[in-house]
This record gives sequence, C-alpha cells and structure tokens, in this order.
Amino acid sequence: MVEYSKRIERARAAMRANGIDLLYLAPGANAQYLSGWRRNRPHFGNVNYPGGWIQGLFLGLDRGPLLAVPRMVAEFDLEPGTELDIRVLPDRGDPAAFLNTLLQEFEPRIGAIAVENRAWSEQILALRQVRPDVEVRLASEVLAPLRQVKEPDELRTMEQAAQIVDQTMTDIVGFLKPDSGQTEFDVACEIDRLMISYGADGASFVTNVWQMGPGEDRPLAMKVSRRPLERGNSVSFDFGSTVGGYCYDFGRSVHLGEPTPEYRKVHALVMQAAQVGIEALQNGGRTAEEVDALARQVITDGGYGEWFRHRLGHGIGLDVHEPPYLDRGDAAMLQRGMCFTVEPSIFIPRRFGARTEDVVVVGGSEGGRLLTTYRRDLQVVV
Amino acid sequence: MVEYSKRIERARAAMRANGIDLLYLAPGANAQYLSGWRRNRPHFGNVNYPGGWIQGLFLGLDRGPLLAVPRMVAEFDLEPGTELDIRVLPDRGDPAAFLNTLLQEFEPRIGAIAVENRAWSEQILALRQVRPDVEVRLASEVLAPLRQVKEPDELRTMEQAAQIVDQTMTDIVGFLKPDSGQTEFDVACEIDRLMISYGADGASFVTNVWQMGPGEDRPLAMKVSRRPLERGNSVSFDFGSTVGGYCYDFGRSVHLGEPTPEYRKVHALVMQAAQVGIEALQNGGRTAEEVDALARQVITDGGYGEWFRHRLGHGIGLDVHEPPYLDRGDAAMLQRGMCFTVEPSIFIPRRFGARTEDVVVVGGSEGGRLLTTYRRDLQVVV
Repeated sequence: MVEYSKRIERARAAMRANGIDLLYLAPGANAQYLSGWRRNRPHFGNVNYPGGWIQGLFLGLDRGPLLAVPRMVAEFDLEPGTELDIRVLPDRGDPAAFLNTLLQEFEPRIGAIAVENRAWSEQILALRQVRPDVEVRLASEVLAPLRQVKEPDELRTMEQAAQIVDQTMTDIVGFLKPDSGQTEFDVACEIDRLMISYGADGASFVTNVWQMGPGEDRPLAMKVSRRPLERGNSVSFDFGSTVGGYCYDFGRSVHLGEPTPEYRKVHALVMQAAQVGIEALQNGGRTAEEVDALARQVITDGGYGEWFRHRLGHGIGLDVHEPPYLDRGDAAMLQRGMCFTVEPSIFIPRRFGARTEDVVVVGGSEGGRLLTTYRRDLQVVV
Repeated sequence: MVEYSKRIERARAAMRANGIDLLYLAPGANAQYLSGWRRNRPHFGNVNYPGGWIQGLFLGLDRGPLLAVPRMVAEFDLEPGTELDIRVLPDRGDPAAFLNTLLQEFEPRIGAIAVENRAWSEQILALRQVRPDVEVRLASEVLAPLRQVKEPDELRTMEQAAQIVDQTMTDIVGFLKPDSGQTEFDVACEIDRLMISYGADGASFVTNVWQMGPGEDRPLAMKVSRRPLERGNSVSFDFGSTVGGYCYDFGRSVHLGEPTPEYRKVHALVMQAAQVGIEALQNGGRTAEEVDALARQVITDGGYGEWFRHRLGHGIGLDVHEPPYLDRGDAAMLQRGMCFTVEPSIFIPRRFGARTEDVVVVGGSEGGRLLTTYRRDLQVVV
C-alpha cells in the first residue's frame, strides 16, 4: 500500500525549500506519484474535449491535493472509486474562470507555481493570463529528486514488470520465423499482445524491433517497419511493460541465420560492457558518469567506440527516462535504491546491430540487483 | 503529392492577418501539415533526451521552415531522406543558447510567436527566458482554420484509413468468442494487429472495446479491461487507423447472445439518429450545432436523451479531434470538404450500450460522402 501522505509531506518540504507555493500537475508520472491518479495511454492523434487543458492535480503547502477535470473526463475516463477531491469543469463552462476559482482556494499566498514539465502550452498561457504576476517554474525541480530512490513497494512493482518482459522475450524468440514473410511489425504486435497477456497494463514505450544487415535500406532510422525477417540480419529488440504506471525497459539482439565471426565478437563485447556497468551499479559508490565511462571503455578498447552512439543508461521508474543519466556530464552520486538501465550497443549501418538492456537496482553494502535475468549469450535463430 | 509550399503561403497570409511573426511548432499535426515532418507514436512513460524540449519546426514570414532537433533525434528518429533544413543541438550543447541563435535567424522582427497548443511547458518557459518581451500565442489561431477544409489528397488518405477500418471490423466480428475466456484486451490487441496488417501505420487513438450489461462492475469508466466476453452483454467498439499521419475514428456496438427487445429498439434509435446526422452533413448548408441538435432530437424523442451524454461528433484529419465540433455552442457554418464524425450513443450503466461512428465529408451542391460503409444493422454474436 503506497503511503501518498508521506510523499506529499516530502513534496511539501521540497516546495518550501525551493520557494514553491503550489504544484499544478497535468496528468503524468508526478501527479501519479503524489496521488495515485493514473495517466492514460497517450493517443497518436490529439483528442480534444472542451477545456481539456485544465486537467491537473493541485497541491498547496497546506491544502489539497485537489483534482481538476473537464466533465467528459470525469464521466468517461476517471477510474471509479477514486477518493481524490475532484472539481469538474462543465462542458460549456469558462475554463479560465474555473482555474481562477481553483487558485483562489490556495490564496492568499501564491508567489510561485511549479507545473508539469510536459504540461500543454495552452495550460501555461492560460495560467499566465489568469495570474500574470505569478512565477511559473518546473515541477521537476521539486519532484525529480524525490522520485530517484525507489521505495520497496516501487521495487516490487518494477520486479513484476521485469518478469513480464522476461516471459515475453522467452516466447518471442520461439515466435521468430525468418524468410517466411513475417515482418518486424508482426513481431512487435506479438510482443505487445504477450506483455498484456502476462499482466502488463501495456507497453511503457513504443515497442521497437529492427533488423540491421547488408540489405538494409534505412540505416539510421532504427524503427519497426514492414521489412520481412531475413536470414543474414541481426534483429534488435527494445521494449518494456508497464505495471501500475511503472515502466520497464529491456533489450537484446539475436541473429537470423549463422552470424559472421565479427558479429560474435561484437555481441560478446557489448555483453562484456553490460556486465561492467551492471557490476558498477550493484556495488554503488560511484557517480552516474563514472559508470558510463567504465562500460564505454570496454567497447572503446575493443575498437568499436565510435559505434556506441548514446549514453549507457538512464534512471527509470514512473517514467521510462528519469534522472540521473549514465552519461558524460551527469555527476550525480549513485544512491542505494536508484534504478538504472544498462544498455550498451554497437550499431553499424548496413552491417549489424548488437544491444542489450536490463534494469539494475543500485546496491550499497549488500549489493544491488539485476531485475531481468534473461540470458545474455548470443542466440542464433535458424 | 502534397504541395507544402502552398500551405506555407496560406499559413503566412494567416500569420500576417493575425500579427504573428514566427511559428514554433513542436512535433504534431501542425508541423506535419506545413512540412511533412511526421510525428512519432507517443510513449506512455516519458522518454527524455538532453535538450529534448527544443524540438520544433520554425516558420517565419519570409524565412524557414527550419527544423530543430537534439542529436539523438537527428540520428535515431528522423526519417532518412528528409529535405528539411535541419539544425542539430549537440548532446552537451546549451539548449537555451541554441534556441537564441535559431531565433536570431528570424530577426530583426519577432514581436509575436505562435507555439503548438501542446508544446511542453518546458519549451514555453525556455522561450520566455530567451525572449522575455515576445508575445507567446497559440498556433491553432493560425492553423486550425486552414486545416478544416480537406484537400483532395487528404480525402484520398482518409479513404484509405476508412477501408482499413472497414476490413478490420469485418474480421473482428468473426473473431469474437463469448464465454470462451476471450477478453476485451484480446479483442483490442487483435484490432491493432489487423489495422497494421491492412496497411495502417498504427492506431489513431487508443483502441477501445468494452462491454456493458447486468454484470458490469465499473459502469462509468468505459475502457478496455480484462473482463472476459460474456453473452448477455453489449460490446461497443471505438477505434481508428492512421495512414500517413491522418486519423480515422469508427464505432459500432454488437450484442453477445440474444438481446432484449429494448436493446433492439435502442440500437435502432441510435442508427436512426446517425442517419439524420449523416444526411445533414452530406447536404451541408447548416451550422455544426444544428447538426448536433437534429440528430440529438431523434434520441430525445425516443425517450433516451439523458443517456446520450456527449457531442454528436468532431472534425477529424491530422488530429482525431479537430474543430469544428458538432456540439451545442459551435456555430461554425459547414463547408464543403470538412470531415466530421457522427457518433450518437445510448449508454445506460449496468444495462447496455449502443453506439455507431463514421466519418462524413461535408457536401455541397453534389452531396457529401460517407467514408466507412460498414453495415449498421444490429449484429448478434451467438
């Protein structure tokens, strides 16, 4: 059972320390973290309801949380039984006047409001119109630090998400049928279906399955396509499940047909780099960028440094990518209970791609944990 | 072949008329409309890259369009072969300084900038920091009117999306197996798979399949769940395909097992209301709210007005919901070539739900067109 009241207490302490009087959190991970208000899966094409921009959770220093939603959302979208204090904007209500009334509940003192980093511009412009003198800042200032170290309940949920991904990957390797007309899209759809069948709420990000090899026609856009699976190509996977709003992120590469000796070498090098990163996180006591540098060195020493073209990993939790980042320039000290992906890769356009990705819980004196335990040896699909 | 130069010309005329000097369009339908820059499917859990908020298309009165992206997006996300003028923010670059340099290309005159309605607050706050004196407004002011009447090319794409949906619904009725353990989620996954197999890029919004009936435990949240399909329930569908960024939106209800006489009556009433709405749009010559009122009257006269709890429909195109809206209070005059959904419903919690939804192209002297032609009689799945 998540104790939202404790999180709210910590958020208020951070608000006071940062000079923030009110949080106004559009749907997202921050609002869920503080209240349990679940965000929906996002739509490709925007869906618009009258006053849709009003949506958000309000938390003052000694009032709230309070949830504002338009009538359509209250009636068709909210989970029944929510115990939040809800204010409903009627269909033909005036959203700006409604916002003004809401803000009055938190008066007299609103000097600075922190908003969700991805709140709609429409909401920000309306807020500035209603309260021109208020300072508008970003909620990440207050909430990102609180969310970095995961509570035991959060880790249990992340473990469930990991198990779903493990089972899905086990099934999917048996599902691959190269040279049969089966496409990358077919595989991605099956991954999404399997994750839900194993208990996921859905995919934590857009499931990605892509081949690299000699016949490649779009070497840079590494995205799922209608290309049929063909022997001679590597196939890389990048996907994750969500459980209760928590996100997982996982990856492997397999080879269709017998790989070249170079591919075997490159695949082993990526796995070796991953192992170095995983152990560094398990042991703790370093900064985020130091872990990146350690794992990267393995690939650089192997002669493929220029083809490892992204950070080693990122924090993960209610969002897929959260600070800190295992990246040059991020000097954050590792803390026990932080969760990071470790995802080295070597992608050479028109030749091959090899990657792996798991989530690691940073350890302290008693060592950290690897959440996915799926095999990391090279699998060849014949 | 879309002629972006003509759209840009019209956009600039609207910018001049509205006193807007620059459009700064985060990824979305507006940016695609003006440049062909395709937006990605959105992620459930946020995915973050250094300087991610910078992303956008810049269009000045006599310069641009120009696309700004962070390095990770340029390298891994952009479609190869794009002919847009691209500026890349390096990984450890300063996004604010980068934005400032970009804006200088449009100087000396930037009095007012219009931003994407759903641009991230992070972008808006950075913009205000870099150019505190500039007026920030919403891009919808300039672009929503231009996008309402569809060009012949746009209608052809909408027709493709409609055909995919027609085929998918035909298959899905045969797929339903009540009392077998098959769940709403199973059906929704199959719909998504079928749409892609028939040529869609994906779902235009989150596919929704939900039962209503005596055993219902969550009467208000009409969303796909793990409930197994059971005879005695109605099942409602709400889904759409995207093709080339264009969105479709479709719906029907079927009944699992023999329906009651009342359900037959209610289903027929909904179809009758739809027919009235469709014909009114085909004929043109009315306002948006008049069409809503005409169709709504059918359901009110039938005695179920209180259970038709949303607008009759909405404009549709590059977004799922676009103005104008077939809703009380929207006095926009219908114009030939506008596209609207017609989607009356009667949902009575713990009893049943009946809905239908198709897209209609508004006609003029020679009459409009219904894009989906899927049957509208009541189908009983035994």
